[in-house]
Amino acid sequence: MILELAEIRIHPGKQAEFDAAIVKGIETVISTAKGFRGYKVNQGVESPERYVLMIFREALENHTVDFRRSPAFQQWRGIVGGYFAAPPAVEHFTLVAKSA
Amino acid sequence: MILELAEIRIHPGKQAEFDAAIVKGIETVISTAKGFRGYKVNQGVESPERYVLMIFREALENHTVDFRRSPAFQQWRGIVGGYFAAPPAVEHFTLVAKSA
Repeated sequence: MILELAEIRIHPGKQAEFDAAIVKGIETVISTAKGFRGYKVNQGVESPERYVLMIFREALENHTVDFRRSPAFQQWRGIVGGYFAAPPAVEHFTLVAKSA
Repeated sequence: MILELAEIRIHPGKQAEFDAAIVKGIETVISTAKGFRGYKVNQGVESPERYVLMIFREALENHTVDFRRSPAFQQWRGIVGGYFAAPPAVEHFTLVAKSA
């Protein structure tokens, strides 16, 4: 399992609209992609325009190849891209340890 | 519930030692603090010296007040601080949405 962490900063005052758009984008586009296992959308306390999107997939290639090189990537960006104040910073992580 | 996200960069080549130290620090110190609900330790794929520590607590003050102003904070830093290549960047988040 691989975790994609996307750090997103949106235009101020658009939080409610973005909350609906990101859920729509995940539920209708990202969740149908190969290897998808789950997601969380987190909003900053100190910076309410800051979001951290977590997407769990079976393998790294499910994101870097299967998703990014498919039409789904442009569909996703079409739904949420207009809210981004800057290009998201995206990195991948593996789980080292967690609570029982 | 509140999520603390700590972005940590450690000294190169110390991953195995740090993996053991961070779990020890969480299990023996952080997990005993007021409001603690769970944790995940994630290691970067693109940057293996980069970790994202997620700590779940009942309320923001459980971290900013109860933990940081207790002796536990220094105990925690005593266990893991020597591995840090820079001060961790810490922010707090609330959950907007997640998969079923």
